[in-house]
Amino acid sequence: MPAIDLNADLGEGFGVWRLGDDDAMLGIVSSANVACGFHAGDPAGLLRVCRSAAERGVRIGAQVSYRDLAGFGRRFIDATAEDLLADIVYQIGALQAIAHVAGSTVSYVKPHGALYNTIVSYREQAAAVADAVAAVDVTLPVLGLAGSVFFEEARRVGLRTVAEAFADRAYTPQGRLVSRRQPGAVLEDPAFIANRVVAMVTSGEVEAVDGSTVAVTVESVCVHGDSPGAVQIATAVRDRLNSAGIDVRAFC
Amino acid sequence: MPAIDLNADLGEGFGVWRLGDDDAMLGIVSSANVACGFHAGDPAGLLRVCRSAAERGVRIGAQVSYRDLAGFGRRFIDATAEDLLADIVYQIGALQAIAHVAGSTVSYVKPHGALYNTIVSYREQAAAVADAVAAVDVTLPVLGLAGSVFFEEARRVGLRTVAEAFADRAYTPQGRLVSRRQPGAVLEDPAFIANRVVAMVTSGEVEAVDGSTVAVTVESVCVHGDSPGAVQIATAVRDRLNSAGIDVRAFC
Amino acid sequence: MPAIDLNADLGEGFGVWRLGDDDAMLGIVSSANVACGFHAGDPAGLLRVCRSAAERGVRIGAQVSYRDLAGFGRRFIDATAEDLLADIVYQIGALQAIAHVAGSTVSYVKPHGALYNTIVSYREQAAAVADAVAAVDVTLPVLGLAGSVFFEEARRVGLRTVAEAFADRAYTPQGRLVSRRQPGAVLEDPAFIANRVVAMVTSGEVEAVDGSTVAVTVESVCVHGDSPGAVQIATAVRDRLNSAGIDVRAFC
Amino acid sequence: MPAIDLNADLGEGFGVWRLGDDDAMLGIVSSANVACGFHAGDPAGLLRVCRSAAERGVRIGAQVSYRDLAGFGRRFIDATAEDLLADIVYQIGALQAIAHVAGSTVSYVKPHGALYNTIVSYREQAAAVADAVAAVDVTLPVLGLAGSVFFEEARRVGLRTVAEAFADRAYTPQGRLVSRRQPGAVLEDPAFIANRVVAMVTSGEVEAVDGSTVAVTVESVCVHGDSPGAVQIATAVRDRLNSAGIDVRAFC
Repeated sequence: MPAIDLNADLGEGFGVWRLGDDDAMLGIVSSANVACGFHAGDPAGLLRVCRSAAERGVRIGAQVSYRDLAGFGRRFIDATAEDLLADIVYQIGALQAIAHVAGSTVSYVKPHGALYNTIVSYREQAAAVADAVAAVDVTLPVLGLAGSVFFEEARRVGLRTVAEAFADRAYTPQGRLVSRRQPGAVLEDPAFIANRVVAMVTSGEVEAVDGSTVAVTVESVCVHGDSPGAVQIATAVRDRLNSAGIDVRAFC
Repeated sequence: MPAIDLNADLGEGFGVWRLGDDDAMLGIVSSANVACGFHAGDPAGLLRVCRSAAERGVRIGAQVSYRDLAGFGRRFIDATAEDLLADIVYQIGALQAIAHVAGSTVSYVKPHGALYNTIVSYREQAAAVADAVAAVDVTLPVLGLAGSVFFEEARRVGLRTVAEAFADRAYTPQGRLVSRRQPGAVLEDPAFIANRVVAMVTSGEVEAVDGSTVAVTVESVCVHGDSPGAVQIATAVRDRLNSAGIDVRAFC
Repeated sequence: MPAIDLNADLGEGFGVWRLGDDDAMLGIVSSANVACGFHAGDPAGLLRVCRSAAERGVRIGAQVSYRDLAGFGRRFIDATAEDLLADIVYQIGALQAIAHVAGSTVSYVKPHGALYNTIVSYREQAAAVADAVAAVDVTLPVLGLAGSVFFEEARRVGLRTVAEAFADRAYTPQGRLVSRRQPGAVLEDPAFIANRVVAMVTSGEVEAVDGSTVAVTVESVCVHGDSPGAVQIATAVRDRLNSAGIDVRAFC
Repeated sequence: MPAIDLNADLGEGFGVWRLGDDDAMLGIVSSANVACGFHAGDPAGLLRVCRSAAERGVRIGAQVSYRDLAGFGRRFIDATAEDLLADIVYQIGALQAIAHVAGSTVSYVKPHGALYNTIVSYREQAAAVADAVAAVDVTLPVLGLAGSVFFEEARRVGLRTVAEAFADRAYTPQGRLVSRRQPGAVLEDPAFIANRVVAMVTSGEVEAVDGSTVAVTVESVCVHGDSPGAVQIATAVRDRLNSAGIDVRAFC
């Protein structure tokens, strides 16, 4: 049976504050990108979500970020390579211990927010992130965007790269994401999104905003956990994949 | 040749801020209690001190703390056991990854500041810290005060306890530390301190503030790294130990 | 027409995180205890809530706290008087500027969470808070608990004290709040709560948990903004007060 | 008697950490750019330095920054105009209350570090800072670089701009600062620096790195407070100015 990985960002509360419905999402996805405390995630909250993930057999990834609680990691920070490398190592290690205590382990790394977007093209920070992951454990795969500078740097240091597509984001004819500042950048109709994911997974293609067809590399599909309707969309995606005979399963 | 461990708190800067002379202290002590980011220690600074420690063969311990940069971990925080346990796990894990990248490993855990003092007698938090260390790795020894509730809880969960004495602190006739708020609580004369350490290590006894003799359990001696004259005092202690035929060496 | 003040804690999000429905509550209460950034409240969020308050004619108070985002200010911190005083001054000033830019002003001060509870009886910190408010502006009233050490210290330095009662909290026969750890400490039925508030305001008495009647000083009534059903309860309280011929209006 | 203002960054410690010798610098400069807690400066430390400044008659300015303790405000953060405006308002207000309690007042605003450099040319953030200062108090002058976009935006909203020159930084033939990454960017010889400051102040010109002469607008001279030799350099500058018959005095 063919299979695809579904990943979502989880554990993104802090102290009393919550974001999204982690428990519901853990019933849907196969991979949980768990925050590591720098953009979100107090340790007790991280331990709770890791325990839930472990109980449900959902794999845990370290969702590493710039140090920016006030900006939720969504703002570029001009960190030096030296600082960024150490920040990433620190975050992965912290989550490794939390996951271990929860009876699981950190199985991959996915950069978050502005860091994710920055290292698509900014080589110095991309290399710092890749070096950090490799220094901690060179067998940890990294989740990201096919064709990114980050993936080049990750392969340079011997990391496995896992390309993800986005369930609810519009694509340009060049295969990039339409900026969130453009209208129509984020899709909202669960049925439409679900059908589109099945098409991406089975054909390796997606319809771009101009109606053209563009190739996408899809080893995992990212569904959002914190948008309005997130659970409903993720459920529709999973159900539609199953109906099409595609299993939802963590990448090996 | 008889031997004793010397430990000191290191890595206690944050960003541009520095505290003490880490490099000088690493040439003297056998065990470095490295901050973990909650009371001090930005990741890049922690990586630097762990690399120096690794190069010099100084063992690394995780100096875990309340989350309190503004108070340097010196203020009691009424954290719940659940929060405190997760905070400790998070900090140990973060430093484990940093130490690993530096080519070393975290070999023990020592609570810092107000947490250290609190768990001498406060069982709920003492148990949370002990549970956290055991959950991460039950083979990690904990450094602390002989006779403390923390040591009781640590042994309950199967941790090895390592009792430390303080080179430059006055003792009460009951074998406790004289409060820093009392005059004479902190000793300052390097030669006096050095002779006293040799006496403690060889006889297991120390002269208390009232002139009486009190027994102390000494598996490690703590020297301060950030006081004025810290390097001079630590050097005197090490030299005097060596003159007395006692090697400075990490506890097994 | 007789009148009473209704106050609620607002502006208690941080960055992307939200807590409670500030806009709905601002349509109900007469006084908004706005967070100041130490337990909650990023500046942009504080500016938004202050602008909404200003537009609706709701008065703004500074809800000052221990510095503890991770614990939401709900954990006692053993801060020195010197540190606490400066922390309070800093927070009031920050909110004064935010309120000014929003076209309003800070009209009173209310301590939050663990600080509120601590200074009911802990004189050193109570004095530090009172001294801080007086140093910033001795004409700023403080909201708190009648009979508290905080009120003694506030009067000592010339501050006006405004006693508040709690709409949804059970009282002991001694007129103190039943601890949240006891069952029945927090009331939940909107109609019951609303009737009780009217009784407190008109008679100065409330029924304690043992059925006895206890006197309460009520210059303001605190309604919660972040509990489930908060808006419904606050609406019921306001409606019932109005039906009883009591206006909801900020204390002079 | 002709006069010039000397300004320096002060109050840049945090908790136990110190940076530079605030007390010595307060005996030399006429204007203290006091940190506001976002890149440095715990409230108790800020209160101490404001009290010292008040006692010595040194004027206090608000040294506002990105929110970045770990990076000491030296890293560009891609903050939105909305967030940045509120961050600046918050910081100025916080320091206003601290200065008030210290018996003084905030008399001007000077952006710090990466924010200072960014708004030389980045209009969106420059406008946010200018709007923030004007919203708090349109009579507050801003200290910065002549010819900067920040000064354009400041004048647009009615703020007085005060141009500063740097005592110990090399200038390009275009009148800009040589990047710190270039050799020779920072001057170190006290006598050379002192003579150069007198020349800048009296002639409005400075010798650039290529030996050419370039005009500089100098209403205030910035001396550093935290470099090695800072106190010695600042003393030399002040003494040399006095010998040349130029008084050191805050800009009106």
